[in-house]
Amino acid sequence: MNAPVSPPSPLGLRPEAAHLPASGIVEVANYGRLRPGIIPLWVGEGDLPTPAFICEAATRALAAGETFYTWQRGIPDLRAALARYHERLYERPSDPERFFVTTGGMHAAQIAVRLVADSGDDVLIPTPAWPNFGGALSVAGARTIGVPMRFGAEGWTLDLDRLAEAVTPRTRALVINSPANPTGWTASQDELGQILALARRHGLWIIADEIYARFAFDPDLAQGGRTPSFRDEMDPDDRVLFVQTFSKNWAMTGWRMGWLEAPPALGSVIESLIQYSTTGVAAFLQRAGIAALDQGESFVAHQIERARRGRDIICSGLGATGAVELTPPPGAFYAFFRLKGDPDSRAMALRLVGEANVGLAPGSAFGAGGEGCLRLCFARRSEDLDEAIRRLAPVLSRTV
Amino acid sequence: MNAPVSPPSPLGLRPEAAHLPASGIVEVANYGRLRPGIIPLWVGEGDLPTPAFICEAATRALAAGETFYTWQRGIPDLRAALARYHERLYERPSDPERFFVTTGGMHAAQIAVRLVADSGDDVLIPTPAWPNFGGALSVAGARTIGVPMRFGAEGWTLDLDRLAEAVTPRTRALVINSPANPTGWTASQDELGQILALARRHGLWIIADEIYARFAFDPDLAQGGRTPSFRDEMDPDDRVLFVQTFSKNWAMTGWRMGWLEAPPALGSVIESLIQYSTTGVAAFLQRAGIAALDQGESFVAHQIERARRGRDIICSGLGATGAVELTPPPGAFYAFFRLKGDPDSRAMALRLVGEANVGLAPGSAFGAGGEGCLRLCFARRSEDLDEAIRRLAPVLSRTV
Repeated sequence: MNAPVSPPSPLGLRPEAAHLPASGIVEVANYGRLRPGIIPLWVGEGDLPTPAFICEAATRALAAGETFYTWQRGIPDLRAALARYHERLYERPSDPERFFVTTGGMHAAQIAVRLVADSGDDVLIPTPAWPNFGGALSVAGARTIGVPMRFGAEGWTLDLDRLAEAVTPRTRALVINSPANPTGWTASQDELGQILALARRHGLWIIADEIYARFAFDPDLAQGGRTPSFRDEMDPDDRVLFVQTFSKNWAMTGWRMGWLEAPPALGSVIESLIQYSTTGVAAFLQRAGIAALDQGESFVAHQIERARRGRDIICSGLGATGAVELTPPPGAFYAFFRLKGDPDSRAMALRLVGEANVGLAPGSAFGAGGEGCLRLCFARRSEDLDEAIRRLAPVLSRTV
Repeated sequence: MNAPVSPPSPLGLRPEAAHLPASGIVEVANYGRLRPGIIPLWVGEGDLPTPAFICEAATRALAAGETFYTWQRGIPDLRAALARYHERLYERPSDPERFFVTTGGMHAAQIAVRLVADSGDDVLIPTPAWPNFGGALSVAGARTIGVPMRFGAEGWTLDLDRLAEAVTPRTRALVINSPANPTGWTASQDELGQILALARRHGLWIIADEIYARFAFDPDLAQGGRTPSFRDEMDPDDRVLFVQTFSKNWAMTGWRMGWLEAPPALGSVIESLIQYSTTGVAAFLQRAGIAALDQGESFVAHQIERARRGRDIICSGLGATGAVELTPPPGAFYAFFRLKGDPDSRAMALRLVGEANVGLAPGSAFGAGGEGCLRLCFARRSEDLDEAIRRLAPVLSRTV
């Protein structure tokens, strides 16, 4: 996953841009997006549209004329709602000044990267990993150093000694995604404490992606309706940047709305980074965010329950094919399974679009350790997942 | 405007981020935003909310469930509408593949910068200039080289010899904003041809900001309802990147929706830059963009007519104070005037908030040549502008 030296660009572009890795997920999705009847399990979104009470909050604000420039950090009402939500979920005091509204979790990740990493810097990421952190680091000219996780009978695990050994004087930050996309790995409280201690010891930043915290299926790792968090271990001024999104909990993937949580001392810098990238988020969309946070709990519970059923269907269905290695993930909403026949995962994902009319993401898109695997999003109605298994099983069985 | 060498950051941030220049416009707007009765002429937006036919297109799409991830480059229907719009306005064939939907013009500018400029690169910008290009360049680690314009009886002019002399081996791009924010400078066809020839000669990119092309008040520079464009001079594969926005023509500043127009060969790179920054624009918002482009001409004509009246009120009203030097701008919708008393422009802008309850932008926010000036946006109802003049005149008169 380390960046190769870039040759000059024939297009006259700067090398980092011209040689930017394309997303291997987007490639497959663009290939199959318009196929009639496709069951799209390639990206991290469910099949439910955004609930009406959320849409209507945006519609009301739009009709009321909230169509002007607004605060770069987010409207004060949404920042206050974010603080309330975090106080409820994490059972500790919060502060609106910690929250910065962004154009999706990706924009929060981009800003986090721009805050801490530059050309000549290394950032450690356990892999397989969501490819977009690496993409944002490439754009910034920084280097992604993958720390391979292990895959065994107990599923995917992260060796903390291996993480510590990967730190060098060039390391500036750790990206810690728990529950993890794609592997489902979910850090225990003790593991998070060890990672925080490692970061403190070396003066590193942690970029914490806990966006799947509500999707927790292992009772030991789901106290109070969410997985363990760095918030349980840290001081408010620790060097931890949380990237967050409305996408998953509230079925708002297409809205492109999220937030960055950071020490308030970084406020003016983050404001400038928002100003010089997107200049903020539409105020009328932010009204919908408030509705989601304040009135969305029963919908979130419904989403989690659906994902739990989806996980059961997919794990037992794929297991029955005899063609894959898979341990039910403790968190997030993906099955990330190894194909026993060890085919090229990109070719396999394209083949599954053609032969099964089911869209999966190729493991190769997720960096070191991902090749040979496929990712399937199970946040979807049971009927679709049953049908996906019916279509996938014969093709997968032929690979062993 | 050249970037100073940055000292290490006490916050543990990368130096470019920690020392990023704050927007001098945002500073004043944040200072006065909540004052009752303020007449806000500091930022580049009018007083009309987005027209209902545009809002309703978004509302319909939202109610229809267009809340999922979509094409990173923009939905095909909007890209086709953009090509139609450009064919009408520029009277030459266009191509949907040239258009990439972005999170406002600022995001288009950010992507343009990321395509062409990196640390160690210089980008030339005639100044005074909209500060956000410089901001985006600072984030990228590239250097902004201001090329000062001249201010005289004929208004603001750009000396093309001076621009040519500023090119060095480190120069990678020219930012050309015509009609210009804040100065109103509007390039003639001949000037654009000369600038294009200069760029071709040195293999430079042009980042063209023609977002005020419809706001043209000089009959010699407003053929066919728009100002001269690089499109009139260039081949489709010339190194020209157009940043564009829905904000100004259609009163959609708060929507954060724009587009980048670029040679189609750059498509996959631009798609990745969108993927790794914002992952695209909400599909339901893009439906509103189609309504604006296809059905928005009478509203645009109304906006232009209002700005023309606003220009008359402001130019005659400020002229009558005897306290300023101002030539009516040929394009855009700003008066950028020099204060004869030569006060500190930031202090003056803050004072005008306090003493006149009118919000103007300080000239110092716009780089070299801007100090001593103020910017006033006149895209607003006549009554407000008359009142603004009544409030401003006594305070300004006391400065000479």
